[in-house]
Amino acid sequence: MITLYGMGSPNVVKVLIALEELTLDYQFERCDVILGAQHSPAFRALSPNGKVPVLADDDGPITLFESGAILIYLAEKAGRFLPAGSRYTVLQWLMWQMGGVGPMFGQAIHFRSGPPGSDYARSRYRTEMLRLVDVAETRLGEARYFGGDDYSIADMAVFPWFRTLARFFPQAGAGPGLTRWRDAITARPAVIRALGRADKISALDAESFKAATPDQLDRYFGRGAYARG
Amino acid sequence: MITLYGMGSPNVVKVLIALEELTLDYQFERCDVILGAQHSPAFRALSPNGKVPVLADDDGPITLFESGAILIYLAEKAGRFLPAGSRYTVLQWLMWQMGGVGPMFGQAIHFRSGPPGSDYARSRYRTEMLRLVDVAETRLGEARYFGGDDYSIADMAVFPWFRTLARFFPQAGAGPGLTRWRDAITARPAVIRALGRADKISALDAESFKAATPDQLDRYFGRGAYARG
Repeated sequence: MITLYGMGSPNVVKVLIALEELTLDYQFERCDVILGAQHSPAFRALSPNGKVPVLADDDGPITLFESGAILIYLAEKAGRFLPAGSRYTVLQWLMWQMGGVGPMFGQAIHFRSGPPGSDYARSRYRTEMLRLVDVAETRLGEARYFGGDDYSIADMAVFPWFRTLARFFPQAGAGPGLTRWRDAITARPAVIRALGRADKISALDAESFKAATPDQLDRYFGRGAYARG
Repeated sequence: MITLYGMGSPNVVKVLIALEELTLDYQFERCDVILGAQHSPAFRALSPNGKVPVLADDDGPITLFESGAILIYLAEKAGRFLPAGSRYTVLQWLMWQMGGVGPMFGQAIHFRSGPPGSDYARSRYRTEMLRLVDVAETRLGEARYFGGDDYSIADMAVFPWFRTLARFFPQAGAGPGLTRWRDAITARPAVIRALGRADKISALDAESFKAATPDQLDRYFGRGAYARG
């Protein structure tokens, strides 16, 4: 049995998509990172980095954090979505998502509306986010999927970030290449199942944001009493 | 023949270390990203993301960007530094570097001294950088290397970022686990060769920073006329 620990964030949605695409049996265990569940000793034993997702597979047994490593693990376990002929092209775009799209879309979203005085940071991350969107649009104007002809774990990694980005920057990612690619992925039965599950998890996350105390939110954002700079 | 395109930045140093460890024949081609060489059509054909490093290997032939993908490629090509028994643990910490250490140390360094009004961003990234340093210290208090008993591409990926961080935040990363690990890696003959080469490249980068026009610096930092936010 496989257990996925997470919330409704893009890095977790990647793994939900992979598990549904591979039709692997799994259970989902919500870790309420908004309220601080990732800081418990039990969770830190699973995830020394204190973040989600975490995947535990009795077959192995193995416990892994970092969504990019989990995607490679699942693809190699099942022998799918990381084709030998495009292996390093897929890994290249997966790394581009892990090191660029994820962190920088995340910062652009974080700074989209303040706090006051953050004009420089807002501009910095919006600029980099738009640059990455252009790179994606160019790639998908040339190739059907990020890895080339075949849908792969690179697409599973990038897709949830564009889905989240669209909520905050509806104009970004509206080019023809990205639109075609997004429509093709959105129509996949496994993706429909994964996103249905993700939406239910996100609804719980939204409740946690409402329920969180100011101290819990400060801890979540690493600010106030939790800032170290 | 292998050609590595780059500058003296940590993501390029990773690949220099891997090439020296694997004693592969390679040539280094400097791409002056400070003066904008990465925007040339010739370079964009190699690297659609417009960043370094890029590795081109006539054996394949293959051209790859993203340092994390290049490290996996080289390790699998040579059959070293990605041991089967700790494969996914190594990939997990490699991804932790790619998605956490690289982007967040980078932001902490960028915001270390301004610009004015950036107190929130400075605190945000310093806090996250120190959290990641703690995670590394904990890991290296439990294991000899990030992947476990064996030196691997995960160490090659993390090491240059701690080396760069120490220049700007000398107190960060001074714990016993990180110190032991850093000393062990610094003493490796291949690392000594790689860092010697990196220092020479960095000296050229420093000259480019001095020679750069205000417009070139704005482009490099995505600000001024190049800001899109």
